[in-house]
Amino acid sequence: MKLSPSVLASLATLTSSRILPRQDSLDYNAAPPNLSTLANNTLFDKWRPKAHVLPAFGQIGDPCMHYTDPNTGLFHVGYLHLGASGATTSDLVTYKDLNPDSAPFIRAGGINDPVAVFDGSVIEKGVNGTPTLLYTSVSYLPIQWTIRYTKGSETQSLAYATDGGKNFTKAPFGPVIPSPPFAVNVTGFRDPFVFQNSQVDTLLGKKSGTWYTVISGGVHGEGPSLFLYAQYEKDADEFQTWEYLGQWWHEAANSTWSDKDWAGRWGFNFEVANFFALDEHGANPEGEIFVTLGAEWSYDPIVPQVSDERDMLWAAGTQTLVDGKLVFEPTMAGRLDAGRSAYAAAGKVLAADSQASWASGAPDRFITYVWLTGDFYGTAAFPTRQQNWTGSLLLPRELSLGHITVRDNELSREKGSWRISSSPSPSQSTTNGTLTLTTLRQRIAREPIAAFKKHASATYSLPSGPVTPGTMTEFTPSPRSNKYMLTASITLSARSNTTKTGFDILTGAHESTRIVYDMATEQLVVLRGNSSAAAKTTPGIASDDEAGLLRLFDVPSSSSSSSSTTDTTTGTDVQAQVETLHLTIVVDGGILEVHANDRFALSTWVRPWYTDSTGISFFLEGTATAELSNVTVYEGLVHAWPLRKSTL
Amino acid sequence: MKLSPSVLASLATLTSSRILPRQDSLDYNAAPPNLSTLANNTLFDKWRPKAHVLPAFGQIGDPCMHYTDPNTGLFHVGYLHLGASGATTSDLVTYKDLNPDSAPFIRAGGINDPVAVFDGSVIEKGVNGTPTLLYTSVSYLPIQWTIRYTKGSETQSLAYATDGGKNFTKAPFGPVIPSPPFAVNVTGFRDPFVFQNSQVDTLLGKKSGTWYTVISGGVHGEGPSLFLYAQYEKDADEFQTWEYLGQWWHEAANSTWSDKDWAGRWGFNFEVANFFALDEHGANPEGEIFVTLGAEWSYDPIVPQVSDERDMLWAAGTQTLVDGKLVFEPTMAGRLDAGRSAYAAAGKVLAADSQASWASGAPDRFITYVWLTGDFYGTAAFPTRQQNWTGSLLLPRELSLGHITVRDNELSREKGSWRISSSPSPSQSTTNGTLTLTTLRQRIAREPIAAFKKHASATYSLPSGPVTPGTMTEFTPSPRSNKYMLTASITLSARSNTTKTGFDILTGAHESTRIVYDMATEQLVVLRGNSSAAAKTTPGIASDDEAGLLRLFDVPSSSSSSSSTTDTTTGTDVQAQVETLHLTIVVDGGILEVHANDRFALSTWVRPWYTDSTGISFFLEGTATAELSNVTVYEGLVHAWPLRKSTL
Repeated sequence: MKLSPSVLASLATLTSSRILPRQDSLDYNAAPPNLSTLANNTLFDKWRPKAHVLPAFGQIGDPCMHYTDPNTGLFHVGYLHLGASGATTSDLVTYKDLNPDSAPFIRAGGINDPVAVFDGSVIEKGVNGTPTLLYTSVSYLPIQWTIRYTKGSETQSLAYATDGGKNFTKAPFGPVIPSPPFAVNVTGFRDPFVFQNSQVDTLLGKKSGTWYTVISGGVHGEGPSLFLYAQYEKDADEFQTWEYLGQWWHEAANSTWSDKDWAGRWGFNFEVANFFALDEHGANPEGEIFVTLGAEWSYDPIVPQVSDERDMLWAAGTQTLVDGKLVFEPTMAGRLDAGRSAYAAAGKVLAADSQASWASGAPDRFITYVWLTGDFYGTAAFPTRQQNWTGSLLLPRELSLGHITVRDNELSREKGSWRISSSPSPSQSTTNGTLTLTTLRQRIAREPIAAFKKHASATYSLPSGPVTPGTMTEFTPSPRSNKYMLTASITLSARSNTTKTGFDILTGAHESTRIVYDMATEQLVVLRGNSSAAAKTTPGIASDDEAGLLRLFDVPSSSSSSSSTTDTTTGTDVQAQVETLHLTIVVDGGILEVHANDRFALSTWVRPWYTDSTGISFFLEGTATAELSNVTVYEGLVHAWPLRKSTL
Repeated sequence: MKLSPSVLASLATLTSSRILPRQDSLDYNAAPPNLSTLANNTLFDKWRPKAHVLPAFGQIGDPCMHYTDPNTGLFHVGYLHLGASGATTSDLVTYKDLNPDSAPFIRAGGINDPVAVFDGSVIEKGVNGTPTLLYTSVSYLPIQWTIRYTKGSETQSLAYATDGGKNFTKAPFGPVIPSPPFAVNVTGFRDPFVFQNSQVDTLLGKKSGTWYTVISGGVHGEGPSLFLYAQYEKDADEFQTWEYLGQWWHEAANSTWSDKDWAGRWGFNFEVANFFALDEHGANPEGEIFVTLGAEWSYDPIVPQVSDERDMLWAAGTQTLVDGKLVFEPTMAGRLDAGRSAYAAAGKVLAADSQASWASGAPDRFITYVWLTGDFYGTAAFPTRQQNWTGSLLLPRELSLGHITVRDNELSREKGSWRISSSPSPSQSTTNGTLTLTTLRQRIAREPIAAFKKHASATYSLPSGPVTPGTMTEFTPSPRSNKYMLTASITLSARSNTTKTGFDILTGAHESTRIVYDMATEQLVVLRGNSSAAAKTTPGIASDDEAGLLRLFDVPSSSSSSSSTTDTTTGTDVQAQVETLHLTIVVDGGILEVHANDRFALSTWVRPWYTDSTGISFFLEGTATAELSNVTVYEGLVHAWPLRKSTL
């Protein structure tokens, strides 16, 4: 997601102010003033996350340009910030800024990028074996799908890592992809994502190990697209020439995957697309082809320079040759994050021999970071100067191919964010009444989960066991801070439209935030209407609700009603129960991440004002009973930036 | 021809010094000092031309960007100078700077052209009906065919005339031709020349009036090329999209048109190509296809960043469709100017209804200006600061299709800078022994010729009539200045290898320059060995000879031996005589232009030092006698810049 020049200008002001002495005079036990009237930097700590990736101060934009340094095995996590900045990590838990004060490793202002540096991606062993960045070099603004495209505004250029990635030196020549395809009136043409894939090699008859890039965008009047390019063989060592291979993926303008909101809208323009292949363990070039992407769209009538909505989506599908061009067709799609501020995910294959994976024993993975905009894409009048930082990345997630065994019924047969990967063959005289569904499995990376548990300063649990409707159980004592992870497994006894269950968090005398699963709407909702007293005094502190679709399927149950797996080989009809809701909730300063069942995430900002707003309660409403287990708060999290001077 | 950064930097210093008070203490009656030791600007007037196009001070580069303003009918003559600058003319004789001090109408330093503005050409009624410039926008240097091409160094961008052409405002978007053709490893890619041509429309099935552009360059390892592009129909009003139509013309690297030096070498890289069509009267879209071009080459071994030679050539030929691509093949070629400092010609169709042509009664013409580099393409250590101007354009030339009736013999059958356009059909039992040759007819535009005659401050003539070998006839008195036009027609009695004839000019006690036609070598030569006493004291004042091939054919003669035309319809063998040598010599300050027989030009610098070096003598050596006619000096020329403050 790209910002307008005026926003960039104001950010330049903002981010040039270093960390200042902070006022400690704010009274968080009294009603808040209009926060935009406070002195600069006074809110720096208030909602600052501890365990998340964000720069030392200032604005963070899209994550991008991640790579594993082949010399060190360290994973480099990048993000837009005064150009692009980044950090290294050996464990996906703690990070080390590449440069002091998170100073960027690449800045706009060169011949190719006089106006801005947009997202890019890294060929680990590129030119002369050096990490080589292919990024969008910007010469003209504004750029948005709602307005006429300015020719030459976005080109793709190279830069080379020097000093271990502290700096990327721009190539001393022009863009290597100097324009969109000939005479294509694009809506956008940016965010090159480089990858290697053996399936693509084979389908296109390319040399094994060929580098490709997808470039995100779309075509005016036609719809969003991903443009595919390949490294040109005669220039293989230099990466200066990229051959256009056609629109690898195109969707009709303003179309959708499903009528319901399982996968948002394809919209009018794609952004930040990542290409990767997954199996059940993680990254596998021979696995199923996946894409994560941002989709931009608006309500009718479209207002120039306003993109009302941005959907953070994923899709999986098949590639086939059509008239010699490789074409992708989705077989399933969904939301990578249902939060309206969550966008622009960027990932990278993290190999088993990277430092982090070696230590944790993880296989090759595709790790992705989602951006959480702090001021709703620059449109919210958030008190940015008072906070002196804006936005964050979300916790790293590991993606793989997930399967669920479910009852074969309308719920599983609907076109949702899954596909049916195995069903009884028609020749079978009897079926056991189940289906295997396949979907994107996504969860917070194993390392931070383990670290949050291992290093918890305190834990708080509710007893496992049955609960009855009307229950409201408070954790006693409450966590002392707004930095914790909460896990819970809730098995509802019946599919009841009146049932709502979940947690009230960040609750005090004046404020509370509800995380609720609503059986009637199949939505996981974060109710923010009473989250923050500051929202009532200060523009730009959002208090609207966030919601995302999560289906709890009917799953087989045999003797044990709490078992969510069963033997599908018996050939006998199975008893069914509602799939258990597994929640992992992370509260880290103003960030709330709600993850469910390894296939749902909704992240947003929650910014309570009062000191006492730390309470947590479980609730169950409606007619169904529930079985609770693993309900634990792990308080404290882990400071992601041990080398930064910080009061957190 | 493009300059290196170091040269550009030194020029920036040079051209930032405005016209300074000049020293008048130089003694042109005594031997010169090393001129590079003189104070800045002391030589400003010494060799400054009066009737030529050059900026008020400073460096002039390639002519380009000429056009007739459709609102005024004035012809705009452009040239590279601190970007590009120019002047208007209503008569091709006098000029008016577009801006004070010849300040440029476009400068480098924009987003598309951070480093330099190279040659371009103008669509008279372009975007919104405004003159629209397509020019080479430069982002990286150095650029030369001898070194690896820097990707993105040359792109083609738009700018629009504002204020009647005093300024060209750069388009607020990127290059409209953002790169060379895909994966073509070019040696150069610059100097777009826009044109309309009905023959091309028909051959390619394009809409009538389509705009095309050739872009000059070449391919490493393959040879020089012209790349053809067409205005894209769906973007016809905006000129933002140009469709690549292939290599319209390609020659093998380092090849030549003929074994002898009739057309120099095609070399390794083309520059400044112009496309136009001519008939016997001038410009005609249905006429024969012509190209003027610069060809770059070096002697073996090629030294990086050194192009030893630049040939200023023309070619005419045919266009055919080969695999759907329009391909040009020359049928004849020659030198537009044989002077080694004459290069980078740029022309434009000047319509009959332009102010100049309307006044002179001229038809549609193709008018071209050749550049005369003042410091041999930046390589000569000329005392540029002392002179405070460098280089000039040559007088405008009008081009048309020329025919010569000649004897059918080895001289006319050789592959030279002409083609045989009509010859006796084999079925004829007898022939009259003649051929009609066709070539490029080029001569100084009619308006300056007429003006130099009309406004001559003095004329000096030699008597017409026969002269014998050994003759040396001095004009008495000599012209008082080095600003005049000399015409002469010399008909030699026989083809004798010992015969040399011509003029000694700029002759005094210490210096003389010989212009000689040498029958043995068929060369017109300018002997500069004794031209300038300053050449003996000062580096960069060239004293080498200049030469070009000019064939005087055997032409039919009937009863009158001095007649050079005859009735070719009689069917009887004709008597032959040597074609008359018609010379038009212009001396204007340090510029010497030698034009012959409407098909030959050789221009160079002659820089005598002494005040008395003004003498002119005719000479004839060898065995043949000669008949002289029209031998006249028209002194004074016409000041091309009446509005400039000048001491000339």
